[in-house]
Amino acid sequence: MPNRLITLTTDFGTSDHFVGAMKGVIATIAPSARVVDITHHIAPFNILEGAFTISEAAAYFPKGTIHVVVVDPGVGTVRRAILAEAAGQFFIAPDNGVLTMVYENTAKPPKVRVITNPQLALKNVSRTFHGRDIFAPAAAHLARGAKPAQFGKLINDTIRIESTKPVQLSAHSWRGAIIKADHFGNFITNFHIDDFLAIKTNPFTMRTGKARIHHLTSTFSETKRGELAVIAGSSGYLEICANQASAAERLRCGPGSPVDLEI
Amino acid sequence: MPNRLITLTTDFGTSDHFVGAMKGVIATIAPSARVVDITHHIAPFNILEGAFTISEAAAYFPKGTIHVVVVDPGVGTVRRAILAEAAGQFFIAPDNGVLTMVYENTAKPPKVRVITNPQLALKNVSRTFHGRDIFAPAAAHLARGAKPAQFGKLINDTIRIESTKPVQLSAHSWRGAIIKADHFGNFITNFHIDDFLAIKTNPFTMRTGKARIHHLTSTFSETKRGELAVIAGSSGYLEICANQASAAERLRCGPGSPVDLEI
Amino acid sequence: MPNRLITLTTDFGTSDHFVGAMKGVIATIAPSARVVDITHHIAPFNILEGAFTISEAAAYFPKGTIHVVVVDPGVGTVRRAILAEAAGQFFIAPDNGVLTMVYENTAKPPKVRVITNPQLALKNVSRTFHGRDIFAPAAAHLARGAKPAQFGKLINDTIRIESTKPVQLSAHSWRGAIIKADHFGNFITNFHIDDFLAIKTNPFTMRTGKARIHHLTSTFSETKRGELAVIAGSSGYLEICANQASAAERLRCGPGSPVDLEI
Repeated sequence: MPNRLITLTTDFGTSDHFVGAMKGVIATIAPSARVVDITHHIAPFNILEGAFTISEAAAYFPKGTIHVVVVDPGVGTVRRAILAEAAGQFFIAPDNGVLTMVYENTAKPPKVRVITNPQLALKNVSRTFHGRDIFAPAAAHLARGAKPAQFGKLINDTIRIESTKPVQLSAHSWRGAIIKADHFGNFITNFHIDDFLAIKTNPFTMRTGKARIHHLTSTFSETKRGELAVIAGSSGYLEICANQASAAERLRCGPGSPVDLEI
Repeated sequence: MPNRLITLTTDFGTSDHFVGAMKGVIATIAPSARVVDITHHIAPFNILEGAFTISEAAAYFPKGTIHVVVVDPGVGTVRRAILAEAAGQFFIAPDNGVLTMVYENTAKPPKVRVITNPQLALKNVSRTFHGRDIFAPAAAHLARGAKPAQFGKLINDTIRIESTKPVQLSAHSWRGAIIKADHFGNFITNFHIDDFLAIKTNPFTMRTGKARIHHLTSTFSETKRGELAVIAGSSGYLEICANQASAAERLRCGPGSPVDLEI
Repeated sequence: MPNRLITLTTDFGTSDHFVGAMKGVIATIAPSARVVDITHHIAPFNILEGAFTISEAAAYFPKGTIHVVVVDPGVGTVRRAILAEAAGQFFIAPDNGVLTMVYENTAKPPKVRVITNPQLALKNVSRTFHGRDIFAPAAAHLARGAKPAQFGKLINDTIRIESTKPVQLSAHSWRGAIIKADHFGNFITNFHIDDFLAIKTNPFTMRTGKARIHHLTSTFSETKRGELAVIAGSSGYLEICANQASAAERLRCGPGSPVDLEI
């Protein structure tokens, strides 16, 4: 299997040697594997943001892609390392819920194995950098032909983060949350347009912080410059946006803040 | 045409799944294409900065390279998507002027086509993320052998941003502008040394904000630490620099600020 | 030698065309070379941080890898460009000490050559961007088969930065320094665990700024949230860390600040 694709999603940032060391490990074990960075700027230890990001990106990669996801506040503790197969792709990550949205978006239940085979890790495993010592080598060995069964046993108690979906409060109201602010300052909420098609045809109010938004727009530039609106973003999730301006800068809220929707 | 090179220049930042999704789309359509990031940190919606950056970088890439440039405040509106051929390379971008400096730096007039063929885009085109849905697939299809004529018709009314060159005010004075501050805090102006060789041999004054600069240096380290000077930068444009210090931090001006030159 | 690996470590940032231009130069000269970014976020002109970063990353790359390291406050002056062979790998850099820790970590003395052959650089060499004009072309020519001897003569007076190791002040005390804060706000010191194994079994005090730390932890999550501790980091150097918090934000010190250790 030459030229297998390995993607990296971490909260390591790009100013240290961390990502470089992972790529060196991969190049040493699987010289023909190709490495693609998704992002290394997940907010430190933010498992929900990691879960959202890998789920959104993976959907556009070909079958057989190996995704390494390292958002790992529990590195060096008893938390398990896992290899999941879902939708024809592979996911290597700590077992802390960071694959929850990958699991949710696949038709068939994922196959998840705990990674325990020391032959598929570096010889010296540090207590603080499993990205380099366990996750990168696992991806590289998989890329060069190791079989999933070699990594470890199937498990069925993989950890999922609590519902990533809004909770219904009454017949016409739901409470959700902001997943993250994107680079443009749009707040991505956990309301998916497919579950809330009613806002296309009915009056609605979306509240977060002090904002009350009643307007659904279909392009960023359709609204007045700076005006807040709701848009069904490219991920399908409803976003709170401000045309050519940052909603995140205008609203005193952020990742995790509640978002209420009445339709 | 295996191993075609595709470069990416955007204002998407690197903290979201956006760039990863584009790379996934490319890997799916054109598995052997190689993707190189120019930058994803163009200031949001800053078309002039995008124009400068792609023009400077493209000059060093081999013929046949496919450059994707997405700085796109009008995404989802009627603005066109284009495929331009210039200097033996290909440029895929929104038609908003972001290719102006590419056009200016090519001897032969560029061939520009509007991209209208839905077969060369993703099946579902969102209103807000044409980087993923139109521009990346177009580049990937071109890389795997689609002909330019398949994308759409030639046009000759492509949009250019207003003169990117300084305006002459009198026999000895010109008004230009700051294009951007680079990572080191050097202000890159739109005065090109080839057009202003006189400053090498004549006294001159360059003014921006409260600064009056009379000194032309040939290396950053030739001046006193922190002293402001003019230097013909690696792009050929005159830069306002401060040895091992940030001119941008010292001067109260920024991209778009006027720069006056008297010789 | 197809598919040779070239890594890039610079202080250029990622918001300009600089790194893109270097990659274009490499792609033009050595189309089959593969380029891997270590980081472009070395603090501007910080040679010690560059030295640490390339040394830590290179250790994980395969033999034959070509590392380009450009932290170059003296660009355009008489400082030399060098090609060093160490531990079966190649390093191309300005001769300003940025390879010191690479030299220190190799068993055999490195072979260092001064790069003087103009045939292995771009035709027009600017005074301010040797990354593009000298270092990237040198790496690309090496990748496509140029012999080290073609670059220039062996030298034995290559510049090293002053001791990167702590100084012993008395029988039980040493003075070292903070090399850098990593992305998580951990301070990486220049005390290497292999030289200070005694802290594992003896009471100790590490001081920096106003902090007095007596606790050695083996995983980040073992301590109370936010509590300061010392940890032997993944690089082997002692780090001052705070579980799921930034030591760098809590302590009023930074790169270069002294760190005292008593055991």
